[in-house]
Amino acid sequence: MARTGRRPGSEDTRGAILAAARSSFAGHGFHATTIRAVASGAGVDPALVHHYFGSKEDLFAAAIDLPLRPKEMAEEILSEGIDNAGERVARMFLSVWDNPASREPLQAMLRGAFTNEQGAATLREFFESVLLERVVPAVELPDARLRVSLAAAQMLGLAVLRYVVGFEALRQASVDDLVELIAPRIQSYLTG
Amino acid sequence: MARTGRRPGSEDTRGAILAAARSSFAGHGFHATTIRAVASGAGVDPALVHHYFGSKEDLFAAAIDLPLRPKEMAEEILSEGIDNAGERVARMFLSVWDNPASREPLQAMLRGAFTNEQGAATLREFFESVLLERVVPAVELPDARLRVSLAAAQMLGLAVLRYVVGFEALRQASVDDLVELIAPRIQSYLTG
Repeated sequence: MARTGRRPGSEDTRGAILAAARSSFAGHGFHATTIRAVASGAGVDPALVHHYFGSKEDLFAAAIDLPLRPKEMAEEILSEGIDNAGERVARMFLSVWDNPASREPLQAMLRGAFTNEQGAATLREFFESVLLERVVPAVELPDARLRVSLAAAQMLGLAVLRYVVGFEALRQASVDDLVELIAPRIQSYLTG
Repeated sequence: MARTGRRPGSEDTRGAILAAARSSFAGHGFHATTIRAVASGAGVDPALVHHYFGSKEDLFAAAIDLPLRPKEMAEEILSEGIDNAGERVARMFLSVWDNPASREPLQAMLRGAFTNEQGAATLREFFESVLLERVVPAVELPDARLRVSLAAAQMLGLAVLRYVVGFEALRQASVDDLVELIAPRIQSYLTG
């Protein structure tokens, strides 16, 4: 109960900002959340939020403990061009979900999508604002948005059945086995 | 509050059996639920449960309002052989999920998988006992179980993003558009 003598350092400030961000994204969704409102909730200046976390999408990624910023993810996926993106998507996605530290907030976000419309909206808006905008332009086919969305459905369904529902064949498969089978299907969505 | 004069008819009995079945599947999972226990919960003879609903897997399908029995689904999927199963899987799955009467219990079951291990076990056991057993033997490739599970992941991920999360491109696509893109990927899991 006694206050410690420790001065509030940058970790406390970062923590307060992340807590305010999680609360705002959960309560108002991705679009309606502003850096200004998060700063106000954390009792800090908006410039400090930008200083620690960058843009709103980077703040969201930090709030759900993603290991990379969305821009870095898209760059990594496309680093050898769209013709090699299938395997990179599959490996990146599985490395994020295989790590409990990043899996748990993602599972919580998905659970939120099943239990309230706001949770679904947050997930949808984040994905649509961020990933579709960066990956879709690289897909030079009709129905590019639909194709990228179906690739996302393949990866998300794998996450649900491997980590949440626990299908035996998917739980026991190594990342390499999964990538070997999934990557060609993801690739065929992206390049036909 | 007054009791009506109506005699308990077959609809009441069916309803009591379904309620007991839902309660038992939700509480104990697919494997641990027995026809005998469901009958006892509904206050009827086990023979009556068989009479109305058939086997335990058929009872489960009825409890979650699936329009077909699992055996009929597998027969329908394989009715033109494994070489034509991709499109049939995609169409059947989408017709079940496009119908709110069958979608809602499936969504509830998935939500259950996110919130408690028993819900996950029920979904896993039902799928593994029923669909894998019937479809996997028709897949004449190494890793047949993994391949069928990945095809299931593609379909489930589509359901989550189209109906629960509500990705715009997936919500707006017609069933025909979706089938056209998905069926070849499902087919390639089943026949390489």
